[in-house]
This record gives sequence, structure tokens and C-alpha cells, in this order.
Amino acid sequence: MTKYVYFFEEGDGSMSDLLGGKGAGLAEMTAAGLPVPSGFTITTQACLGFYDADKHFPDGLDAQVVQGIATLEKRTGKSFGDHGDPLLVSVRSGARVSMPGMMDTILNLGLNDRTVEGLAQLTGNERFAWDAYRRFIMMFSSVVLGLHKDPFEELIEERKKALGIANDPDIDAESWKTLAAQFKDIVSRQTGKAFPQDVREQLRLAIGAVFDSWNSKRAIDYRQYNKISDSWGTAVTVMEMVFGNMGNDSGTGVAFTRDPNTGERTLFGEYLTNAQGEDVVAGIRTPEKISDLQRTQPDIYKQFVDIAGRLERHYRDVQDIEFTVERGKLFMLQTRSAKRSAEAAVRIAIDLVHEGLLDRKTAVGRVGAQSLDQLFHARIDASQGFAVAAKGLNASPGAAAGQMVLTADDAVAWRDAGKDVILVRVETTPDDVHGMIAARGILTAKGGATSHAAVVARGMGKPCVAGCDALQIERRTKSVTLGGVALHEGDWLTIDGTTGNIMLGKLGLIPPPSQLPEWLQTFLSWADELRRMQVWANADTPEDAQKARELGAEGIGLCRTEHMFMQQDRLPVVQQMILANTKEARETALRQLLPFQREDFVGILEAMHGLPVTIRLLDPPLHEFLPSLEHLLVETTELRLTLGADSEEFKKQDAILRRVQQLHEQNPMLGLRVCRLGIVYPEIYAMQVRAIFEAACLLKRRGVDARPEVMIPGVGTKEEMQTTYASAKKVADEVLAEHGVELPYTIGTMVELPRACVVADELAEYAQFFSFGTNDLTQTTYGYSRDDAEQSFIPQYLEKRILKDDPFQVLDRRGVGALMREAVAKGRGARAGLKIGICGEHGGEPSSVAFCDQLGLDYVSCSPYRVPIARLAAAQATIGALD
Amino acid sequence: MTKYVYFFEEGDGSMSDLLGGKGAGLAEMTAAGLPVPSGFTITTQACLGFYDADKHFPDGLDAQVVQGIATLEKRTGKSFGDHGDPLLVSVRSGARVSMPGMMDTILNLGLNDRTVEGLAQLTGNERFAWDAYRRFIMMFSSVVLGLHKDPFEELIEERKKALGIANDPDIDAESWKTLAAQFKDIVSRQTGKAFPQDVREQLRLAIGAVFDSWNSKRAIDYRQYNKISDSWGTAVTVMEMVFGNMGNDSGTGVAFTRDPNTGERTLFGEYLTNAQGEDVVAGIRTPEKISDLQRTQPDIYKQFVDIAGRLERHYRDVQDIEFTVERGKLFMLQTRSAKRSAEAAVRIAIDLVHEGLLDRKTAVGRVGAQSLDQLFHARIDASQGFAVAAKGLNASPGAAAGQMVLTADDAVAWRDAGKDVILVRVETTPDDVHGMIAARGILTAKGGATSHAAVVARGMGKPCVAGCDALQIERRTKSVTLGGVALHEGDWLTIDGTTGNIMLGKLGLIPPPSQLPEWLQTFLSWADELRRMQVWANADTPEDAQKARELGAEGIGLCRTEHMFMQQDRLPVVQQMILANTKEARETALRQLLPFQREDFVGILEAMHGLPVTIRLLDPPLHEFLPSLEHLLVETTELRLTLGADSEEFKKQDAILRRVQQLHEQNPMLGLRVCRLGIVYPEIYAMQVRAIFEAACLLKRRGVDARPEVMIPGVGTKEEMQTTYASAKKVADEVLAEHGVELPYTIGTMVELPRACVVADELAEYAQFFSFGTNDLTQTTYGYSRDDAEQSFIPQYLEKRILKDDPFQVLDRRGVGALMREAVAKGRGARAGLKIGICGEHGGEPSSVAFCDQLGLDYVSCSPYRVPIARLAAAQATIGALD
Repeated sequence: MTKYVYFFEEGDGSMSDLLGGKGAGLAEMTAAGLPVPSGFTITTQACLGFYDADKHFPDGLDAQVVQGIATLEKRTGKSFGDHGDPLLVSVRSGARVSMPGMMDTILNLGLNDRTVEGLAQLTGNERFAWDAYRRFIMMFSSVVLGLHKDPFEELIEERKKALGIANDPDIDAESWKTLAAQFKDIVSRQTGKAFPQDVREQLRLAIGAVFDSWNSKRAIDYRQYNKISDSWGTAVTVMEMVFGNMGNDSGTGVAFTRDPNTGERTLFGEYLTNAQGEDVVAGIRTPEKISDLQRTQPDIYKQFVDIAGRLERHYRDVQDIEFTVERGKLFMLQTRSAKRSAEAAVRIAIDLVHEGLLDRKTAVGRVGAQSLDQLFHARIDASQGFAVAAKGLNASPGAAAGQMVLTADDAVAWRDAGKDVILVRVETTPDDVHGMIAARGILTAKGGATSHAAVVARGMGKPCVAGCDALQIERRTKSVTLGGVALHEGDWLTIDGTTGNIMLGKLGLIPPPSQLPEWLQTFLSWADELRRMQVWANADTPEDAQKARELGAEGIGLCRTEHMFMQQDRLPVVQQMILANTKEARETALRQLLPFQREDFVGILEAMHGLPVTIRLLDPPLHEFLPSLEHLLVETTELRLTLGADSEEFKKQDAILRRVQQLHEQNPMLGLRVCRLGIVYPEIYAMQVRAIFEAACLLKRRGVDARPEVMIPGVGTKEEMQTTYASAKKVADEVLAEHGVELPYTIGTMVELPRACVVADELAEYAQFFSFGTNDLTQTTYGYSRDDAEQSFIPQYLEKRILKDDPFQVLDRRGVGALMREAVAKGRGARAGLKIGICGEHGGEPSSVAFCDQLGLDYVSCSPYRVPIARLAAAQATIGALD
Repeated sequence: MTKYVYFFEEGDGSMSDLLGGKGAGLAEMTAAGLPVPSGFTITTQACLGFYDADKHFPDGLDAQVVQGIATLEKRTGKSFGDHGDPLLVSVRSGARVSMPGMMDTILNLGLNDRTVEGLAQLTGNERFAWDAYRRFIMMFSSVVLGLHKDPFEELIEERKKALGIANDPDIDAESWKTLAAQFKDIVSRQTGKAFPQDVREQLRLAIGAVFDSWNSKRAIDYRQYNKISDSWGTAVTVMEMVFGNMGNDSGTGVAFTRDPNTGERTLFGEYLTNAQGEDVVAGIRTPEKISDLQRTQPDIYKQFVDIAGRLERHYRDVQDIEFTVERGKLFMLQTRSAKRSAEAAVRIAIDLVHEGLLDRKTAVGRVGAQSLDQLFHARIDASQGFAVAAKGLNASPGAAAGQMVLTADDAVAWRDAGKDVILVRVETTPDDVHGMIAARGILTAKGGATSHAAVVARGMGKPCVAGCDALQIERRTKSVTLGGVALHEGDWLTIDGTTGNIMLGKLGLIPPPSQLPEWLQTFLSWADELRRMQVWANADTPEDAQKARELGAEGIGLCRTEHMFMQQDRLPVVQQMILANTKEARETALRQLLPFQREDFVGILEAMHGLPVTIRLLDPPLHEFLPSLEHLLVETTELRLTLGADSEEFKKQDAILRRVQQLHEQNPMLGLRVCRLGIVYPEIYAMQVRAIFEAACLLKRRGVDARPEVMIPGVGTKEEMQTTYASAKKVADEVLAEHGVELPYTIGTMVELPRACVVADELAEYAQFFSFGTNDLTQTTYGYSRDDAEQSFIPQYLEKRILKDDPFQVLDRRGVGALMREAVAKGRGARAGLKIGICGEHGGEPSSVAFCDQLGLDYVSCSPYRVPIARLAAAQATIGALD
């Protein structure tokens, strides 16, 4: 027979898979001789058995629980359901990893109409006993029977009003007794059955309810967000009740062994005299600081400080401890690893190393890589009170406050007038980029985590809240409705891209540190010693490259040249180039662009002197540089109807419209773009390659060690690689010869199509490096358009669990990953030691970084502010702290 | 030392790889004791060596040629370059497979100012000798020296005018002599060098020119169109000249051993008395029928008939024979397998089996599967007399007649006025596509088999003749010159895309036969006995299904349900369904659609009674059923400016516009479509599945054996498969239970995403069959949108040889094929014996069918008219006649 029930002394701290974190912690504390109430844990295996058996107890569980209660009766000398000296228990959930507040707990179980009398007699405190009973009825009704709490709360409020009192503690025994009776009436009315008086039935139902709570919506959502497996199940701990509400020598507390916000080495927590745990949570009374105990109950405080220190040393980590004092006696109810801020996590890890409790490797593995993201953004000063007006998607972290503007041009104008602005758009397009640059933050009504707004904002390191359903924009009147509130251009907004919250007005912000704080540098240097992969950055400007370098980037993995084309002083020339009808006219425009591009490359190559800079040749379809078709259609129709079809204005716009229609594609993502552009219009790539190498030669003469790597995007066939490689090499060598400069350089390709993965051996005959463009590779492997999918079906897919993660955020190992693995094997098979990296946005996401490490990539490249995250994740991948 | 030179008696018919078809044929005839002039063949290997050595003779070739000439001198008793009895030779190209007219030939080589005199003396025919010499100068100048023929032709014309005569044969010896001198002057003037008098230099240059002609543009285009490898090279045959122009007992002819148009067993060909081969080609005189020889030279005729019969029996195939009669003596110059029409090919194959020359298997292997396509296009009624005005490339098969228009916009305007038009362009670009759609056929002056016009027309299934050199277009005057004839917009033209012929006027066309002719049925029944794979058809209507069944389809592999949604009586309800804001409103509309869909399925399931019908659930994005965004933008702008923003008309259109904008996607191909639709709006698929099974139950009660197979499109993840499978199965079983009917059915998926291939094992846990949707799979594997790519960069890619074939027409084995192979292995690994087919358009393309056979697919499914092609191709794949 499977053993489902473990008394605390039968387990230990290593058994959290079976006993849950709470059960294992209680077992460990029991073994260490700490004061823990008696009790036992029902295993996670029992929970899984419960689901397998269609929500019935698996065979043997019932008998083992009955036996467990019998043992508990023997130990405590109390009797379950007994009128004289009733055994009361708490029934608590406890998963393998902590899911605070996500699952259910029932206290005071074992009370019924008879035992409540016994408890009253035994404690000589009738008020306490009836208070405990009514609490139990409420909690049991809510958690086990699924009733709403409001009717119960309303009765209490009515009672207080009738009695003319304000606070629960002032309610007398008689009133609690009356309320308990009324509570039971509610249960009878609403469930059609009397409140269960059989304590064994109470226990059976409570255990089932805790099992059930594993699959509550909030628990599922929590697991999804925190990437916790659905298949683990929860354990259930049944423990003798101890009461913190038995008078002023009793109380209940929660404490952290160090400050979870700053990491400071000081006991941090709260204590509530004469209360049960739920009172702390409910916030009915303001708790004291834990340090106040030193004054009020010095012996207890001393004992607790001693135990807290022992637990921290024992677990080699900061603990989050729950305890109760019953009539002057301390009981430990729970200990677990403490949740903490990123700053605290890093500082604590460093301190624990210095205190000799951890080695560096373990310390590096302890800090969640993703959490470092918090450190590089402004945040809202939590000391001020504020209300959330609406919520959107936390698309790019950090907080920003500014005056609302509704167009990119307005954003620029207001910024130029010295104002802080938040750009509010239905969604953004490349036409809005100058406005995004001018804005403090971006708020959109549509769009997911990889919408244009989100991606560009993250690239810029600017806060963005995207896809806010509660936002309606009325462009005509320059006003919006946000969560029902009407706002007008110029009104102040504060957005928090870390949480997705949107607040009205201008809140105070705490700025991010201007450079890596020393403690973080120390910590990341430990990570650097451990990691195998290099960390590069995606950067399109010298400023971004400089920032990336400061944050530890060892190269530029993706410099997008199209953003250079978008700048205001070049766009007219770019448009001229696109509208050209002949190769000659196109070349004339390209000659005008050459000095601009050269200047761009000088800047970025200089910023990265001595380090490789991977420059991707033009990637997007040309119509992205022209006005939008929709806009032109409306405008030309207007011109035709107002000025007439013979007007010059109409003719001019109409000519542009026709060219845009010509270039229009059904599916531009799969159209004339990437290397196809460079093959159909070889003169474009030739100009870009010339600009790169002229820049490099210029710098070389100035003593700067420029290391350009030319990256051909979107190659899918050997012939594309061969042709573009040969053309680029020809121009590069020509320029070097013209300048009499020798310069090592490489030409490689972005692997971003399924076919490229399949024929990677053929590509590697020419390509000197591969860089996975996993954004596009994910698009084609799944057949999902990023621009569309994240706004339409991906949210539903995540909700329905068709997708576990958004594959544009977390690399899909099973599908996309299999193609990458094939590409790595075939590429290195054809060219030994081929340098391979990743420059899709996955390069800054810890679990994806770990996968890249498994694939044997040489580097990951991500946006500058994610470089520290990637450095840490790469180290954790090497030491196996990430799977 | 490599042996580069083979005398005819050193080779045999099996050596065409080395000696070319012509050389191997001459060797075989020599071995058979037939009258063949002496000569030798320079191998294809020498040609490859020539290219490897940067267009110099490979080592040893020169010496072997010199030795070959010496041997030839010995045999013939003549002497090369000798004044007394000069040896004259022909130098001809000859590739591994016949490329008629694509490469170069030089006759009468060995003539110079001295030997011409010798020839005159020896033959006693001065006119003959000088005629031969001037012919040689012209041919050598054109082929070897690259001079234009016009100046030579003009001199002849002037001469005839001066002499007052009309025909070349009337030109006397003296005139030819003068012309020869003038010809040499042209050469001196244009090349700066005298016409070569050294006969060995003549030979060396001629051999090099033939090698060179392997890479002439027209040869490359021909090979590309006919899928002949560029790497084979051509052989060169050097043969003693025999002269058909030595009097009326001389002549030259070409004959087919059977009629190449009808397959009739009768000698078919032409003979020209007192002429050289080039005169036949030039069409200066009208040749006699070969049968006339029976009367004029009965001995020669008898001998020729005898030889022709021997050759046909020897090769077990119809021969295309060139011969010359020199002073009453018959010489065989070439024999090769005859090109023939599809009808002739099938009829001949059947006859050869009946004659005991072939077994059925060999006969089935002999007919090009693709050629059967000819039988299902309109063709020109050959019973009417007509003249070919000009010839171009047969770029897309079928015949069409229409009035000539010169712009795409005109094509649309004329079509809209109810006219049939032929769009005539110098070449087409993506801007012409709307005109191509409007036209009956397309004719271009420039461009090869992979030009934009050719590729797009083939995609549309429209006749196209491309690259017609004889066409000049004068856009300004809306007129053209076609083979010298002036035509104006609106004039009638008939084009034949199967042959490349262009005729003036409106010729009568014969529509494709409504059913398989008996001879084709016989032939295909032989193929059916041999093939392993089944052949199914793609059909959306009962009529198409019926047609497919008549053409031999054994099931429906793809029935697209969206075409049913598009029908006029349903579209308003479909739009109502899409515009619905709530699930309830959507379901109301779907209830209205249910009877329509049920009726659709009744029709198609009944037509295919006893055979499987694979019905694909809704696939395209919903906005395809709504008016176009562009149209709406213009319309609402017009309404706003004319009727005002407060008008009801504006408001109504604006509401539709907004919904269309909501549904608008950047890349609809990668958007909310396929099974994503069925997951986001499960009620749509539920209605469709209900309609399918209600139809099947209805039929079952009427005794019809309905065999529905439900196909879920665009599945990429296990969870999508699991969810859609479960939903479909639930509805199906519900309906069957409601009707009390038992019916075997299956639910499977269309494998059309790279990820589906990679996770095929997971899909096969649920899917009961796979059907490769290679159109979409090709799109995502390459990252090409078919709608865009075939009209923009694919033609350029084919021209630049970045792509060997359009991957949407010929399945890409290396990339897409590798993913398919993976899917087959994983799918069958997870579910033994999993039924797998293909329903992309590749299912009707012979080489793709062969690949599907290699992959072990169970069936191919193609459009109804391609079923016969697929039946034959599948048989040829099984017997290894296709690679």
C-alpha cells in the first residue's frame, strides 16, 4: 500500500517533491528539535491520485488519515470531535515550490456544536471558543463549500451596528454564538444541507478542497506566469491548532530573517498580539514591528531570534517564517525561502558568500536572472498613495509620467517645448518611431508583448503599457477614455511598464542607477567567471552600443541598418531611391545615402572598438519606408473630391499611391525583403557594404580597431548565400584595396527560415557565421505573424493552454529548437567551429538563454539593458541552475 | 591521356552520355552496317574540359583532332585543305538529349580560296562549288565569328535584283564567286582580320564555337524549361560532307518513322531535291512529301523505307531521321527518338506493345506524364488551314484567341466590355497581373520560360507564348509588327502556348475532351496496374468530384469548404456571422448556414459514393469574406465628403470599415486562420462537422456509401490537434447517435507548417491521417508568400538561377522534402500504417509525384484534370522511370 501520510518526524527538508515545501520545512524543523506542533503531511502523490480517481481519495488514503488522527490524539492527549478536550487542527496546502496565497487553508477544524462547548469550558474563554467556531464556519463555507463570504461579513457588520461597536474584538461571546447559529442557517439555506457536524467528514472534505484548490483558476494562472508545472500537485498538512488569540500573552507573526527589499541583515516582520494568522492578512489591526517583541515579550523574542538564525544557517538562505505564541509558548508553523527584491537577492547572495554560508557558484545560481530587469528602470515611489485607473500588458518595464499626446508629431513638438510626454496610440508603426523617441513612455490600446510598440519600446528601454482594452482614443477631438474617465491631450498620466498599471496624474518616480551599482558589478563578475557563452547586444546607434558595452556586452550581434534609413534627414532620399524607375536613378539616390550610412557605421564601430559588430544588411520590405497605403487612399480620395483630379496636388499624391500599390504585398513578412532585396536590387547591398568598409578604413587610419561582420538576412537557399556572399566580398575587398587597408572581416547569415536550418550545411559552405533570428524563425515555423498573432489568437491560446508560453517570448524548444539543433549540427558539420549566435529577442530571456547554451551556441545577443540578465542566465546555464 | 575523339565505329548507341545523342546514333548506325559517311565524335568530356580550361582546348584534344582528320583523309582518299581533292566536313553539336535547333552546326568546312577551285574541278560544277563556299562563309561568320547575317542576305538580294531574278537557284556561278569575295570583305571589315584560309584553324574555331553554343542564352533557356542539366556539355561530330545539292539525283530529307502528330504508322517527312539541309530549314522552297520519292527515286525510297524500319525495330521507338542523297547514293546523317505529340506518344506506345516491340511496363515509361496536360487544354482545330505568323517560346500550354490589347488596364476595360483579349507586352511585370487575369492569353516579345509572364501564366493556367523575337511593339500608336505584319489594337490573334505558334485572326479552337478517349483509357489502365500510390483529386463541388471520378480519381483528397461560403446566396449570412459581436449572434448565423453546408456535402459525398472524401474545415482568414479594406477606405471617404459624416449611408459603411480594420492583418497568411479559427470560434467548426455528418446520415439512409474524412487545417502543435480532434469527434458522434447511424469515419490533419513536420509524432497521437499541404508548407519553409513571390521575385530568381524551379510548381526535395520525410517517419513511428497523402498542387506534377512515391505516401491528390497525369506519373515512379 502506498504511504500517503508522513508525520513530521518521518520526513526531512529534502522531501519537498513529496511533502511540499511546507511539509518538508516542518519536518526539517521538527528534526532540528524546534518547537513545532504535532502533525502530519499528506503527500503530493495523494493529490495526483485524487485527480486520477476523478476527485475521490485514492485507495488507502482515508484509512491512513484516520490512523494519523488517532496518533495525533494519542500524542496530544486530546480527542478529535470530543466534547471534553477536543483536538482541533489546521489543514493547509503546500506545493513543491511556494505559491503564496494561491491555495487554501482551513483553521480550527474539529469544531462543531458540541466541541465548541468543550473548548469554551477547557479554555474558560467562551468568547474565544465561539469566535473560533464562527471563524471556522466562515472559512469552511468559503473554501470547502464554495459559498461567498459577503453574507457572513454583512451579518457581522449588522451585529456591530446593533451593538454600537466598531471592532470585531469588541463583539461578546453571546453575539458570536448568535452569529455562529446564523452562519449555519446560511449554509443550510444555500447548500440545502446542514453544516457538517461530523469532524471526520469535515476533515475529509477539507483535504479534498485543498487538493481541488491546486486547480483553481488563480493557482493555474500563477503557475503559468511563474512557469511551474501543472503536474506536481499539492501536499496537505494537518497540524494540531495552536492559538495566537488566547489573550495578550498570545499572538501570531510573520518574519523574514533579512530585509526582503534591501537585503539588509536585520530581522524584518510583523507581530499581532492576541490574533490568529488570518487577522494579519485581513489587515483589520495594524501589526507591530517584530522588533517590538523585544520589549513586550523579551524571552520569546530571544528564542525567536535564535531559531531564525539557526534556520537561516541551516538552509543557507534567508527564511520567511510563520509562528504563533500561545499563552507565552512559541510555536513554529512554517519556514520557507524568502521572496525578495532583485536588489535584495543580489546583496544577500553576496553577503552569504562573505559569511561563508555559500560558495560563489551557488550564490550565482540563487538570483533569478529575469529579476535583474527591475534594476534598470525607474519605478514608482511606493511611499505615495495612488489608485490604478486601468491595466494593460506590461510590455516594456519601468515607470514614466508625462502629459498625454496622441500623435508622434505632437510628441516631438511637445518634447521640443520642454515637456514630458506619454505617447498614446491605438498601436504604433514605424511612422511613430520619432514620437516614441520623444516620449517618456508609450501606451497603446492594441498589441501584445511583441507588438511594434512593445518591441521598439523594449529596444529603446522605454516604459510601455500595451494592449490596454480600457482605452478608447478619439483622434478627432484629441481625447481618450481610460477606464471610463475622459481625458484630454495634455493631461498627466503615469504608466508602469513593469506591472502594466496606468495611473491618472503625475506620480513621483525613483530613477534607475546611472551605472551598474558596485554590488551588481561584483555579482556579475562572479557570473562572468562561470559562463561559457559570450553575451553580445543588439544596438543600432553608437549610444546604444556604448550603453551595451558599459553593461558588459562583448560585441554587437545585431545592428539593424533600416533604422538608419528611417531617420528624418534620410527618409526623403530613401523614398527617392524606392520611387526610382531605373537602376540609374536608384544608384543616384544610393550615392546620396552612402555618406550617411558611412557616418552611422563610423559611430557604432568606434564605440565598439576592438569588439565585433555584426551589421545586418537591409531587411524590411521597401514599402515600410513609404507612407501607408491606407493613409494615401483616404488622402487621394479627399484631394480628388476637393481639388479635382486635374490638380497638381492630386496628381502628385496619386503617383505616390500607385507606386505604393505596386509595392504592396499580401503578406509582406513573406515578400520582397531580406536578402531577396539584395538580389533583386544588388545596388542597395553594394552601397551598404561599401559604407561599412569605408567606415572601417577611416577608423583604421585613426587607430581604431574596427571589426565589422556583415550579416545577410533571410537566406533560405545555397544560391542566395553564394550570390550575396560573393557580391559583398567583392565590394569589401574593393574598398579595402582602394584604401590600402588590411582588415579581418567575416560575412555570415541570419538563420531565420526553416529551410535555412534544413540546408544549413550548404549555407555554411559560404557563411562564416550563423546568427539565429528566432523572431522570424518562430514566425515561419509556427506560421504565426508576430504582428497579428499576439493581438488576436495568442492570448486566447495561452488562456486555453494550447500554448504553454508565447513562443515569441520563450523559445519553443520542441519545434523551433529542433530546427536550430539541426542547423547547428549541419552548419558545424560543414564548417568546423562555425561561430553561431542568436540575435532574436529570445537572446535576453533566461530559459531561452539556457537552451542556447545546451545547443552549444557561442553567444547570445540581446537589447543592451538585458545584457546583465543574459550574463547571469548564461552563467546559470553553464552551472546547470537553469534547465 | 584522355581519349576525346571516337570514330563512329568505336562507339555504340549506349554511349550518348559521352558522345551525345547524335554521335551515339551515328555509331549505332555504322555498327549496323548502314550507309553513314565517315567521321568521328569529340566527347562531351572535351566540352567540359574546354570550360574548365577557360575556353581553351583541354590537353591532347588538338592532337587527337589532327589525328582524326588524318585518319579521315586516309579513309576517304581526300585531303584536308588540298586543292586537288579537298576533304570537306560538317561540324555538328550533339548533347546527351536532343535540343533541336538550340546549338550550332557548320557545313562545308574545309573550303577556302584554293579548295573551292579544286571542288569546282572535281565536281565539274563551278556553280555548286562557289555556292558551297559562300554558304560556308556565311555560316562560319555567323556561328563562329558572331557576325549578323543581314549584310550577307542584303548582298544576295541586291544581286538578284541586279540580275532580275527571284530565286537563289537561278544565281549563276560567277555571281556566287563575286558574292563570296564580297562576303570575305564584310568579314575583314567587321572583324579586322581576313576570313581564315587555314582549314585546320577553321576546324579548331568551329569546334570551339560549338562548345560555346552549349552556353548560349537560348540553349540555357531551353535546358531550364526542359529541366536538362547545365553540367552535361555537348559533343561535337565531325563528318565527311555529302552533298544533296549536286543535281537532281541528289537531295536531302527529314523523316519520322510514324506520324508524330497522330501516331499513325506511316512514314512522315519531307524531301528537297538538289538541296542542302539548311535549305529545308530556311523554307525557301516547298519540300516534297517523303512519299513522293517512291515515284521519283524508287530505289532510294525502297532502301530508305527498309532502313527506317530497321532503325525503328532496333531502337524499339519511332525515329526522326536525317538523310542525304548524293548523286543517287543514300547517306544516313542522324537518327534519334522522335519528338511527338502527347496523343501520338500514347498511341505509338500502345501500337509498339501490340507489335511486340515493347512490353507494357516499358511503354508506360515512354510517355512523358506532363505531356498529357496538352490533352486537357483547348487546342487549335487543325482541320482549318492556317499559317504561323511567328513563333515564340511555348511558355504555358493551351490555345487562346482574342483581340490584341497592349496594356493591362486596357485588358481589364475590354474584358469588362465583354470582349476576349490577348494581352501583348514587351514583357510583363507585377503591375500587369490584373491585365493577365482579364486576358484569355498572354504574348510577350521578351523573356524565357521563367520570365514573369511565363511563371504567372502557368500559375493561372492560361496560355502564354513568351519571347517572340518577331514581335515589335509601338505603344504610342497602339500597334505592333508581328513577323513583318502590321497589326493594331483590337486585331484578332490566336496563340498556341503548347507549341509557341502565333497566328493572325481568330482560329477555331477545340475544347478539351469531356471524357477520356478510349486509347488513353487503355494506356492509363496499364499504368494503374503498375502504380503503388493511389491518385485522388481536389474537388469542391459535386460536378468537379464527378469529373475527377471519371478521370480515375480514387477519392477526394481536398474538399475546400470556404468556396461554399463564397457562393452568392450564402455570402450575406457568412458576413453576418463574421460581423456578429457575440457568440450567440454568430451561432444564429451559423444555424442559417448549416442547411447550405449539409446540402453541399450531400452532393459531393453522393458523387463519390464508396470512395473517401476528405473535407477540410474552414481555412482562410475571415476578412476574405468581407469587402476589401482599400475599397472601403475610398468609399467611406467619398461618402463622408459628399453626403457628410452624419448621413446614414456613411455611418453604415463606416461601421463595416471598422470591423474590416479590426479583422485586418499585416500578414493574413500567418494570421487568424486554419485551425486557429476553429479554436477561437469553435462554433464554426462545430457547424461544419455537424453538416458533414448530417449529410452522411441522410445518404446512408438512402443507401449511399458516404465516407467522410474530416481534415483539420494548419495544425502546428499537439494541443491544437488534441482540441480540434476532440471537438470534431464529439459533434460527429453526437450526430451519428441522433440519427442512429453507424458510419466509419476518420479525423486527420493537413500537414502544412514546418512545426507540424517536426512534431508529427505528437500530432499522430490523435490524427488518423496526414495530408501534406505543400503549398503552405512551401510558403513557410521558404518564407515566401505565394501571392507575392510568384509575381515579384521568383521570376528573377529563376532567371538568375537562384532557384532551379519554382518551388510552388516543383516540390523542393532538399528543404520542404526533408521536412516531409521527417513528418512521415515521425507520424508512422507514432501510429503504424498512418495513411499519408498530399493535396498541395504538387500532387499533379510528375517529378513531385515521384518524390511522394519515394517518401512512401499512400496517395497523391491533384486537380481533376491532372488525375491522368498523376496516374501515369505514379506508375512511372513505381517502375523507376522517374527519379
